[in-house]
Amino acid sequence: MESEQLFNKGYGRNSYNSITSASSDEELLDGAGVIMDFHTTEDDNLLDGDASPGTAAGASSSTHLLDLLEEPIPGVGTYDDFHTIDWVREKCKDRERHRKINSKKKESAWEFTKSLYDAWSGWLVVTLTGLASGALAGVIDIVADWLNDLKEGVCLSAMWFNHEQCCWDSNETTFAERDKCPQWKTWAELILGQAEGPGSYIMNYFMFTFWALSFAFLAVSLVKVFAPYACGSGIPEIKTILSGFIIRGYLGKWTLMIKTITLVLAVASGLSLGKEGPLVHVACCCGNIFSYLFPKYSKNEAKKREVLSAASAAGVSVAFGAPIGGVLFSLEEVSYYFPLKTLWRSFFAALVAAFVLRSINPFGNSRLVLFYVEYHTPWYLFELFPFILLGVFGGLWGAFFIRANIAWCRRRKSTRFGKYPVLEVITVAAITAIVAFPNPYTRQNTSELIKELFTDCGPLESSQLCQYRSQMNGSQAYPAGSDAAATPGVYSAMWQLSLALVFKIIMTIFTFGLKVPSGLFIPSMLAYYHHDWFLFREWCEVGADCITPGLYAMVGAAACLGGVTRMTVSLVVIVFELTGGLEYIVPLMAAVMTSKWVGDAFGREGIYEAHIRLNGYPFLDAKEEFTHTTLAREVMRPWGNDPPLAVLTQDDMTLAELQNIISQTSCNGFPVIVSKESQRLVGFALRRDITIAIENARRKQEGIMLNSRVYFTQHAPTLPADSPRPLKLRSILDMSPFTVTDHTPMEIVVDIFRKLGLRQCLVTHNGRLLGIITKKDILRHMAQMANQDPESIMFN
Amino acid sequence: MESEQLFNKGYGRNSYNSITSASSDEELLDGAGVIMDFHTTEDDNLLDGDASPGTAAGASSSTHLLDLLEEPIPGVGTYDDFHTIDWVREKCKDRERHRKINSKKKESAWEFTKSLYDAWSGWLVVTLTGLASGALAGVIDIVADWLNDLKEGVCLSAMWFNHEQCCWDSNETTFAERDKCPQWKTWAELILGQAEGPGSYIMNYFMFTFWALSFAFLAVSLVKVFAPYACGSGIPEIKTILSGFIIRGYLGKWTLMIKTITLVLAVASGLSLGKEGPLVHVACCCGNIFSYLFPKYSKNEAKKREVLSAASAAGVSVAFGAPIGGVLFSLEEVSYYFPLKTLWRSFFAALVAAFVLRSINPFGNSRLVLFYVEYHTPWYLFELFPFILLGVFGGLWGAFFIRANIAWCRRRKSTRFGKYPVLEVITVAAITAIVAFPNPYTRQNTSELIKELFTDCGPLESSQLCQYRSQMNGSQAYPAGSDAAATPGVYSAMWQLSLALVFKIIMTIFTFGLKVPSGLFIPSMLAYYHHDWFLFREWCEVGADCITPGLYAMVGAAACLGGVTRMTVSLVVIVFELTGGLEYIVPLMAAVMTSKWVGDAFGREGIYEAHIRLNGYPFLDAKEEFTHTTLAREVMRPWGNDPPLAVLTQDDMTLAELQNIISQTSCNGFPVIVSKESQRLVGFALRRDITIAIENARRKQEGIMLNSRVYFTQHAPTLPADSPRPLKLRSILDMSPFTVTDHTPMEIVVDIFRKLGLRQCLVTHNGRLLGIITKKDILRHMAQMANQDPESIMFN
Repeated sequence: MESEQLFNKGYGRNSYNSITSASSDEELLDGAGVIMDFHTTEDDNLLDGDASPGTAAGASSSTHLLDLLEEPIPGVGTYDDFHTIDWVREKCKDRERHRKINSKKKESAWEFTKSLYDAWSGWLVVTLTGLASGALAGVIDIVADWLNDLKEGVCLSAMWFNHEQCCWDSNETTFAERDKCPQWKTWAELILGQAEGPGSYIMNYFMFTFWALSFAFLAVSLVKVFAPYACGSGIPEIKTILSGFIIRGYLGKWTLMIKTITLVLAVASGLSLGKEGPLVHVACCCGNIFSYLFPKYSKNEAKKREVLSAASAAGVSVAFGAPIGGVLFSLEEVSYYFPLKTLWRSFFAALVAAFVLRSINPFGNSRLVLFYVEYHTPWYLFELFPFILLGVFGGLWGAFFIRANIAWCRRRKSTRFGKYPVLEVITVAAITAIVAFPNPYTRQNTSELIKELFTDCGPLESSQLCQYRSQMNGSQAYPAGSDAAATPGVYSAMWQLSLALVFKIIMTIFTFGLKVPSGLFIPSMLAYYHHDWFLFREWCEVGADCITPGLYAMVGAAACLGGVTRMTVSLVVIVFELTGGLEYIVPLMAAVMTSKWVGDAFGREGIYEAHIRLNGYPFLDAKEEFTHTTLAREVMRPWGNDPPLAVLTQDDMTLAELQNIISQTSCNGFPVIVSKESQRLVGFALRRDITIAIENARRKQEGIMLNSRVYFTQHAPTLPADSPRPLKLRSILDMSPFTVTDHTPMEIVVDIFRKLGLRQCLVTHNGRLLGIITKKDILRHMAQMANQDPESIMFN
Repeated sequence: MESEQLFNKGYGRNSYNSITSASSDEELLDGAGVIMDFHTTEDDNLLDGDASPGTAAGASSSTHLLDLLEEPIPGVGTYDDFHTIDWVREKCKDRERHRKINSKKKESAWEFTKSLYDAWSGWLVVTLTGLASGALAGVIDIVADWLNDLKEGVCLSAMWFNHEQCCWDSNETTFAERDKCPQWKTWAELILGQAEGPGSYIMNYFMFTFWALSFAFLAVSLVKVFAPYACGSGIPEIKTILSGFIIRGYLGKWTLMIKTITLVLAVASGLSLGKEGPLVHVACCCGNIFSYLFPKYSKNEAKKREVLSAASAAGVSVAFGAPIGGVLFSLEEVSYYFPLKTLWRSFFAALVAAFVLRSINPFGNSRLVLFYVEYHTPWYLFELFPFILLGVFGGLWGAFFIRANIAWCRRRKSTRFGKYPVLEVITVAAITAIVAFPNPYTRQNTSELIKELFTDCGPLESSQLCQYRSQMNGSQAYPAGSDAAATPGVYSAMWQLSLALVFKIIMTIFTFGLKVPSGLFIPSMLAYYHHDWFLFREWCEVGADCITPGLYAMVGAAACLGGVTRMTVSLVVIVFELTGGLEYIVPLMAAVMTSKWVGDAFGREGIYEAHIRLNGYPFLDAKEEFTHTTLAREVMRPWGNDPPLAVLTQDDMTLAELQNIISQTSCNGFPVIVSKESQRLVGFALRRDITIAIENARRKQEGIMLNSRVYFTQHAPTLPADSPRPLKLRSILDMSPFTVTDHTPMEIVVDIFRKLGLRQCLVTHNGRLLGIITKKDILRHMAQMANQDPESIMFN
């Protein structure tokens, strides 16, 4: 007590000290050793002057909420770009807003209408998002299809018809017979006037490459000039944003517009990429834009993320025609905070989007996707072995793809090479187009190829693959290995398919990460189709209808996608919704789980997590367990020879001292303590809020000078008569900062950060402030523990 | 400082005080006002003697984990019956165990095998649970079917055949033609020798009632004598258990056995109950029993709950034949802590269970449920109106049902009437049987009735309902309201169905909550079938094939179930899996959401939450938002005129003082503070652990006497030479108790409790201990805020 009094003499004996010494005196007299009743003797608790608990509640709660009701300082409570949000604070803000609306509700009919509008705005915004996502997906599907066919030729009767629509009259719409349709002219026919011969082949080849290059160039230029955020798949960034990071403009209207246009161009250019990831990005842009119509969502970063979760479900829903799968994808893969309310809304958004897309009917088959299939043949238990084998291959492919792609992207980032994105895209597009054209399986649209591979061979099918199959079915009597009955067409189909597989694998590694919108799903789905040929041959001796080759293609695709993304349940449900048969869940499950396990053996990260780490986003993965035995005091700052933690005292600093501390440090917030001696924690104040509050006070209050006393208590400290007007900053003080003790294991701290969505946490020892742990500290510590470069966490 | 020294004089100047005064002196000399480096001057931090951070980590972390490695005291870390678990502590324990196994892994091949076994035990236990649940569900289905038919007659060719199996040869298996089968004898035929006439009708009536009463009596007696926990649906209790409450024996082998047997009897007795809820309970019992095979799960209450979540998914999966719906049910309705790993395992368990059930094939239709249907006719947009109307009715029915049922159950609990459960069950069973027999729709099994209602009328159908329908379809030219073409059979069918509806509604209210296994799902599904008659008549003028009456039945059933349980997504997915058509999701969604909203308007609780509250279980619902503005200090204890909080000091109490505090209070744990004066918090010790540790020390250590000093610090305090041996209790001290400040809004506190699964939380003000908030305090406060009786929280 003596020391405190001595220390404070220079500033005058303030009220805080007189109270503490009084209560200590009481304790001295009391002497018995029973605990005191804090409600009557606790030091500056009484000074707060809140007599009854009821009023105390209201006032103090709003105090916590930065005095939003009493004196809202504009800007307080918002975030800078590339900063992490505080979920707890955002949720409190929303509840405060909700209470305000609820209390006003009974005042007038207008307020009641407003409260109704507010209550329904969540459903409204997801409905609008679903509508927009479905419509955009439909438009993208139709236009990409048309542009893709434009590479080969043009419809004379109506320019805006794609190949299939142009040839609607003729029934041959399969790949082999495509060219027999009078209205559809290839470029060779148009320019050279002849359909056959080497000259026309070269002309078609040239036009194909020309269009592909034009589309690619246009796409990359648009991205570079108008919206740099529109490149790539977008899912790593969306995961980061949903986990509570701010990237302004990433989900804005420009990104939406450019992403939609360039996605069409990129898909049409024939690059080895899918539109599924970008569709999620497009849907999230819609969600973000529509959320600005509703103050409930536009002004609250946490609530906005609920809309984005629902939007990502809608995106997957339209990408795969799988509403339930979309919800599970949002839950399993991208979302961070997923309350049950969001589950319902995601489900609703996904359904609305799916039904809009079905009404647009872009594929003319009343289905949501091009490659919807229905199998009816059962599978047998012995087939589980090849399915698991497919899973193993899928896992290996996934691990290989992630490593190769990350290595390539790292090289792009670190070397001079990455400085010419346009050149890179054009090179890749040129190689893709030149290599793709001679092979019919690579020349066509990837979705169409998948459709052909998935489809069961029926009597109506006339593709080369089916020639093979029907031959095989006819030749079951032959021993395995004897391919006497296979036609030459089958051999060429097999070779072409093998080449297509190798080509797609290589090109996808280089394509994913380019500066154009690019998705992963579809290319991955392609990869392992090839394998069933060998398996097929062996097993088909057993029984006549034993094998559904399309099923193998599907299981293989799921396994590859599982290996690359490490999704499980959502992937199985997505493929289940594509096939519509519960029977095939077990093979899918077996393959996908195997693929995940095999992939995890080579590295626990999926492609999205790997890209998040590559880009250094501050993403605290909820899936990865923190298993080390470190304690909070080893992670907190200051540590070792660091300068001491910058703290503010509650009532004995001048404005000059405060500004000095702010300018000399770079941290985002400062703990406020009772006094330097006791180090007992009062609260936490954010740098941004202090700066804004000081500026605001300077503008509005007179008499604020550099030697004004700054205080965070309820009442101003007793000051000498000639001192300038003090500045009260209690309204920006967070009176309930999260604290842990220095002995808390880091596994618990990490858990708290993940589950509550914290930004920082203070560390105490026996009631005294010791240090601070921020989300960045945790990420750095985790990187250190995993022997990675701790400085790779770029952003704040 | 003076006061502390004075106070401590009696015990001698201990090391703690000397250090604090030293550091204070330094601060005095330092004087400048910059914060000190706590790593060198913090008081008893240095005394802990951990020089390097690495060793400090290991030692202190295991210290937190109750010194499990160093000196495991048997019993420490377990829970009493009817207590709440501490999720954070359990998860820490599991990670510690995992690390131990991992570090030993490389020692020998045996240890490696053990670690593999440990890693796979999660999958093993859910596989076993899935297998057992599927098998039990199959057995229950088959035996209940047989017993149900036993009420009407017996198969002469083979006693163990049910009616359908007995009449396998004849093709007439519909209800109306059931009796025309030579091997199947009704009781009248067997006893009186005649099949027709009033005598035989009375004989059949009597035997029907006799068997129903016998089954009901047997069921209630078995439950009463062997396993009182086997009664009811079980879902409210499972929700409570999953939220972290201990009810020993609720999921034990006796409960499993008796529940399985009595469920069969109760279903067969014709009581208005379903087997779906109890199947979830049965599956959870399986999960609990199998978890005892694996130390990973048997010794950790949090891990065990992961298995139970998966088990409940398996239970719903076999109850409805809907694996994905089961997982969503577990996620949406029952689970509390649902990490992604549990999602995968739940999915797997649900699949395994579904496939075992399909292999058993209890219904002879290769489907998982009796009432699997496939609709192929599309629905029209104008039908949304009746669907939404069905939703409104469903919501109203749900709200009415919950109120009526809760009122009845409350009366049963509070009055003398509840003392005779056997009599009550027999009365209800007798009324049910007597009223049910004359009406063919109530006489038959509820599942069979639902099947008949759901099924589309085809040319093969011969039930009276379909006579009506075909008549109606033939009479579309007639104006609405003219029923000229309806046959008398149709009228009687309509009347019987209406009566059946009213009867089922009334009986279900009285049945749910009886002391026999009883589920809700199926009876609720029945309720609103009736409505489509009227709707049907009006709309069928529009087009020939416009209406699928079965679809209305299904939507109505979903709406009612939604109104009663307030499930949304999982319910839609369950019904979607029953019908297998994505097309019907929108009607279902519309009806279920409407039903939920209408129901919520009358009270936000579903039937399970209402029963949880009725029984006073300490369940902190994650769905309900806490919207009040109270602060932590208003909820914490002590409050007002309460006796002061019982605290322990870290190194100046004797064993006698400690035992005195323990015997005089009833709280479950005590905060440990530095000294009475400073009130700075060191940690938290649980009552149970202290008691066990003292007993253990008395048994094993010599020289422990009543005036032994008890200390929680790392090193023993300096004691006079003649004092007895001190007792070190640091190993049971939780060094990282959760704390919040007294200004923290309760909404944040409730959030922390929910998300982290806390048991208690300490409240501080400016670094000083002020009080404690337990889960019970929060529940009591929430009840108070909702104007309910705060003392209704029975359990600790």
